[in-house]
Parts: sequence; structure tokens; C-alpha cells
Amino acid sequence: MTAAFRLAVVQLQVTSVKADNLSRARRLVQQAAGQGSKVVLLPECFNSPYGTSFFSDYAEKIPGESTQMLSEAAKESQVYLVGGSIPEEDGGKLYNTCAVFGPGGEMILKHRKIHLFDINVPGKICFQESETLSPGNSLSTFDTPFCKVGVGICYDMRFAELAQVYSREGCQLLVYPGAFNMTTGPAHWELLQRGRAVDNQVYVATASPARDEAASYVAWGHSTVVNPWGEVISKAGAEETVIYADIDLQYLSDIRRQIPITAQRRDDLYSVTSVQEASG
Amino acid sequence: MTAAFRLAVVQLQVTSVKADNLSRARRLVQQAAGQGSKVVLLPECFNSPYGTSFFSDYAEKIPGESTQMLSEAAKESQVYLVGGSIPEEDGGKLYNTCAVFGPGGEMILKHRKIHLFDINVPGKICFQESETLSPGNSLSTFDTPFCKVGVGICYDMRFAELAQVYSREGCQLLVYPGAFNMTTGPAHWELLQRGRAVDNQVYVATASPARDEAASYVAWGHSTVVNPWGEVISKAGAEETVIYADIDLQYLSDIRRQIPITAQRRDDLYSVTSVQEASG
Repeated sequence: MTAAFRLAVVQLQVTSVKADNLSRARRLVQQAAGQGSKVVLLPECFNSPYGTSFFSDYAEKIPGESTQMLSEAAKESQVYLVGGSIPEEDGGKLYNTCAVFGPGGEMILKHRKIHLFDINVPGKICFQESETLSPGNSLSTFDTPFCKVGVGICYDMRFAELAQVYSREGCQLLVYPGAFNMTTGPAHWELLQRGRAVDNQVYVATASPARDEAASYVAWGHSTVVNPWGEVISKAGAEETVIYADIDLQYLSDIRRQIPITAQRRDDLYSVTSVQEASG
Repeated sequence: MTAAFRLAVVQLQVTSVKADNLSRARRLVQQAAGQGSKVVLLPECFNSPYGTSFFSDYAEKIPGESTQMLSEAAKESQVYLVGGSIPEEDGGKLYNTCAVFGPGGEMILKHRKIHLFDINVPGKICFQESETLSPGNSLSTFDTPFCKVGVGICYDMRFAELAQVYSREGCQLLVYPGAFNMTTGPAHWELLQRGRAVDNQVYVATASPARDEAASYVAWGHSTVVNPWGEVISKAGAEETVIYADIDLQYLSDIRRQIPITAQRRDDLYSVTSVQEASG
């Protein structure tokens, strides 16, 4: 294991033109790699506007056009590429799916969002992903030469259990492509990330699309990286950008030694466990 | 169940004079009741300076002098009184113990801190409760006519599992008497409370001693109440004071309906459970 590596988060401006989303994403991955990044994270729904009315039109099989680009981008830039998410079609169902590629261009993970975003805050935000999407049924981690990484998509981040299981399985970095909105973004986006980080003493990174005020769903932006002390170490604004953070696994170990909650848990009193690892 | 009730948090200035701590605590409970409070929360180690060198000198049996005062204070003020904590001696061992009294003056709960505060942040804060204290072995909740309440003491708050089990058992308010310090206070005190609140959609209240810059252990103060949306709704500074918050269980229900994470958890994929309920 290498003690430190650079992570890049691409806060892509997602438009209705898929080809443009793909080409800009690829260029920004190249840019991130040029800055020494070893792991690059794209936003949720990076190839399509976010909205139940768009998912079926933009959905693809995996492999397909968008994941082909991701594979090539990972290989040409020699990075681990967490491909945000795309609407995936499989067997007549649609999923919100994150595909991860290794530096050889091989797909090493496919995570289908397991908690669908169904909320209704009257007068603020109502969204029902389950109108068109089906949930995944698997927890999802992947290995790198640097550390193990746990993957969730957006609303998955609200469920502390996922992060707890991931960190118990040895993940030191959790990544959440996500598109919070103008209500839940200011209220909870950073809080949830910092909470996951401090409770599990891991790094947490989120990748949002850049904000598009003209979109039907306005993303909060503010892609962020938080360290195991719960501090924000890198944060975007609302615009398209690439942010960077150096993930320091020695620092993580130091934090875990200083406040040794990972060793002090009372496993005789409570338990957080993964119930199954079904494929989904 | 009544839909709303007033909670008071007493941020007591704890001195080395036990009798003075007890009499001021009693007076502030009366003051809180006079403002309509139905549940009153005292700080961790409210009868004694906080420090391993003090615990044995200030320790008492339960029942004893300090809990007798708590019983009388609860009864005369007709409140549920969460008696912060005191160093408890039992069977030759010392515990950091929270006793809770009902408005009839009867003790309805005894929680012994289950996660001992053993940390070492070099150059900042080193503290080893386990040098003198023994841990409790029970999760602890109590019922009121308003809602069920879960109890933890200070470092217990760092362990998300405790709050998760309490909220699954129906607690809508979590209370943590606690004394964070000048390192962990600014870094984590509010973050942890807001995290527990938003992850479990419950109210969270903390009671710290007021800050005493001359003490060997300098408490952060900043007793706080957070609502189920994760917002701070009442917060003290560093000085002795009583803060108030109206706990609105209808609002809590509204939040759980708007963002229904408590119903959307994937119990088929992960599980958070209480392993046992041993007495301790």
C-alpha cells in the first residue's frame, strides 16, 4: 500500500447533449491525470440531465457508449475512474449505476444505487426515482494499490449503515457521486459527508454535477473531500471545475490511534453487519 | 403522547465544592421548571471536577448525597431530571454514571458510560478514563409521557451505533451529558450531534459543564439542542446558563414523512442491532 495518493473530483457541467457530456468528462479526466491524480471521480448522472423524464432516453446497456468512453479514459490516463453514474438499462429495468474502471481499462465494479431517492418536502422538493428506476441489491467496494474504496450514489449517503459496513470491511475512502438539490444541499450535503468521515475515520469524497439554474432539477454542486478528522479539505463552488485532495493514509492511521473508536466499539453490545452480498 | 414539550439544558459551572455544585444545580432545575420545562438535563460530572484524580474523592454510592438531591429536585419541580453524571462507587469499582429521576422523585434509570474516554492527541489532549473508571455494559432508555429518551454520556456520542439502536427502539430524543474539551469541542461536538440527529431523524441534546479556564480539564461548553433536520435550535456559549428548546414531535413526524429514511432502510442488506441488554 502506498501511504498517499491524489484524488480528483470532476464537477462536470452536465447538459442535454450526451456526446458533449462524454467528451468534456474525458477531457477533464485527462486534466486530472495530468495533475498527478490516481483516482478520479465523476458526478452522478454525468451523461444525462438528472430527472425521471430523462432516464429512459439516456439509458444504456453496460457495456455501452458511455462506459466505453470511461474504459478508454481510464486506460489512456492510467487512473482508477469512478464513473459517477449513468441511467442503465438491463432486462427492461432502469438503474442508476456507477461503473468503475481500472487503469487497464477493465471494469472492476458496477454499483447500482440501492436507496432510491423518493422524498417530498412540500413546497421545496419532490422527487420519486422509484417512478422509473429499480434499486440495486449489492454493497460495492473495490481495491486499488492505495486503499480499498466503498461506493454509494447520492441518496445512499443518507444511510449511515452503508458507510459503517464499508469501513468495517477495510475501506479508507468512501466515494459518493451525488446530486443534492437547493433544499437538501445547503441543509445536509456537507453534514452527511463530515458525519460519515468522523464516525468511521475515513476519507469521504462527493462529486456533484455543476449547477444549472435552467435545469428541471438544480444541483447544489459543492463537490467535496473530507478527511478522517471531519474537516473539509477540498470543496468546489457551483461551477464546472476539478478539485483535488491528497489522501494521506498515514494521517488516517494517526487519527485512528489518537481517538481509537474503531478499536473501542462495544461489539458485545451492538452490531452493524452486512446481511448479504447478493448480486444486483 | 403529547406532541410538544419543553426541554431545558443546565450548563452548570462545576467547582471543586460539591455542596455548592449540588445547591446550584438544584436552583437551576427549579428555574428551568419555572420556565415550563418538563425534561431537564444536567452536565456530565456535575458534582465534581472532571479528571481521573477527582473521581475517587467525589464518588458516591447510588443512592447517595448527590442522587438524593436529584430525587428531591425532580419531585419538587415535577420534571424528568436527567442527572448528568457523577462518579459512582459500587463494589470497589468506579463508574461514570447518569441517574434519571421521574417527577415523583423515583429513580427510573441508571446509565453507566459504556465507552470510556481514552484518547491521545499529541500536544493537544491526553486522557485515560480507564485508569480509574470501569465501563457500564447496558444501553439505556427511559419512557416519558412525551416520548422515549435514549441516554449516553459524552464519549458514548462518538459511537453512532448507540444512537442507531436507540432510535430503532423508538427514542425520539437522545441526551448526552458530556464534557468535550478545547480540542475535540470545536472539531466534533456540534458535528456529532447534528450527525446523530440527521441520520436518525431525532432530537439530540447535550449538556456540558460551563468552561473553567483554571480547571485541569477545560470543558468546551456549548450545550446544544439539535432538531431532526440537523439544525441547531438552541446553543449555550461557554458560561453557566440554562438553555431551552421546544421538542416538537409532530415536526419530527413531518421530517420522517418528507425524507422517509427510517422506512427506506435496506434491512435486507445491512443490520444494526443491539447484541444484548446485560445489566451493568
